[in-house]
Amino acid sequence: MVTAEIVCLGNELLMGITVNTNATYLGEQLTRLGIEVRRITSVRDELKLASECIKEVIEREPEILIVTGGLGPTYDDIQMEVISKVTGKRLIENKEALELIKEHYEKYGLEMSEERRKMALIPEGGKILNNSAGAAPGCLIKYKKTEIFCLPGVPTEMKTIYTTAIHPYLSSKIKILITECKIIVENCRESEIAPYINQTKKKFKKLYIKSHPQFGERKGIIIHFSYSGEEGEKIVAEAKRFLIDKIKENQPKIKITEIGE
Amino acid sequence: MVTAEIVCLGNELLMGITVNTNATYLGEQLTRLGIEVRRITSVRDELKLASECIKEVIEREPEILIVTGGLGPTYDDIQMEVISKVTGKRLIENKEALELIKEHYEKYGLEMSEERRKMALIPEGGKILNNSAGAAPGCLIKYKKTEIFCLPGVPTEMKTIYTTAIHPYLSSKIKILITECKIIVENCRESEIAPYINQTKKKFKKLYIKSHPQFGERKGIIIHFSYSGEEGEKIVAEAKRFLIDKIKENQPKIKITEIGE
Repeated sequence: MVTAEIVCLGNELLMGITVNTNATYLGEQLTRLGIEVRRITSVRDELKLASECIKEVIEREPEILIVTGGLGPTYDDIQMEVISKVTGKRLIENKEALELIKEHYEKYGLEMSEERRKMALIPEGGKILNNSAGAAPGCLIKYKKTEIFCLPGVPTEMKTIYTTAIHPYLSSKIKILITECKIIVENCRESEIAPYINQTKKKFKKLYIKSHPQFGERKGIIIHFSYSGEEGEKIVAEAKRFLIDKIKENQPKIKITEIGE
Repeated sequence: MVTAEIVCLGNELLMGITVNTNATYLGEQLTRLGIEVRRITSVRDELKLASECIKEVIEREPEILIVTGGLGPTYDDIQMEVISKVTGKRLIENKEALELIKEHYEKYGLEMSEERRKMALIPEGGKILNNSAGAAPGCLIKYKKTEIFCLPGVPTEMKTIYTTAIHPYLSSKIKILITECKIIVENCRESEIAPYINQTKKKFKKLYIKSHPQFGERKGIIIHFSYSGEEGEKIVAEAKRFLIDKIKENQPKIKITEIGE
């Protein structure tokens, strides 16, 4: 299975100022491609702390690492410096990046400045990923066993680069089928259905099955089935039927609703 | 400065099914107490992967580690097993935990079962943290230089234990003053104000200052000032004045609004 990690730079994530929806978005996208996201780490905008974190990721050898945040014009935008430090690829002014940044500001009749020029400093050999939603381009760097995708932290910009550059690239390389389905059970506690979930997992070992108690508007417990690989449709359907039958047999008072994707 | 890390167990976080609002909540709470949250990691519900992650945290020696998720009755609820494996403290059926779990189910006229009993398995020496919002109690374990707080992943339960047990405990131990303020600047790009932010940071070295471009309903860029320690009120006020003056002097077209906490 292709594995990935996500690292999000930004004190605002650690201070509880910003909810890390970037990680959720990327986690969902990669999972849909059949990639196993192993870890998501948020780390402070400090060269030492962030470099240690990225270094450790590289040592775990995921095929893919997506880094978000820290590509802008301010003093704490240190992502490229971190990647340079970890990979040993020195920062150079990338012509393609510089042109894209110039073009971006020219559209608004704005001149280049030292701070804007800084965004063109890219680790040597990095492939530029155009950011049509903002100023700072992303880049792709191959290092040891990992492809490192460097993205901005502003969600609109991150998503623009992901959808226009990374998704097409990864989906052309990776072809794994993911099959998923969900049911909702009501009038019960998680501990009441736990034995049947455990039995289902025991019977369908490669299946991912997880219960999510809902305490919001929609009460009940969502049970999520997911399988990656061939024959997923068959296996997920069988597992779902197995669990539903077990619950009906033992706990007829529980209401079960099958829901779509 | 007291440092902390947060580890969140749960495949649903890595698969983009659930937004990690627990981490945001805990990050904000700890930051308000003057604690520096160094890293937030989401990791899969797998004994090997989760244990490696927690082991690495312990080696970084934060004073505080909060772990969320994986305390329930199903097969993938492995937090206590992970903590036991990493600390070498064996899992034992904790009498206090068992009583609390029994009481919880008795309220609803429910009997104990194997799955419910599992939630009373706590690493030896763990101090029980009562969960008045759910079944699985949390616990506090001291190991090497770190106090490990084990919490459930269901947000209402996690918050209940945090507010009733952890917050009072930490705030009685830690007394650091955090001073914060924010301004919003409009009619400009981040790269236009970047030089003044960089100058402010250079002049007030211990200050945390960060720009957050807003692309939602409320346009503009929020600039966040934060200082931890004595004299924060004076330093934050001076830094804010310094930045506002710099912007007004150089870019009079920029609209600046000072906002409350």
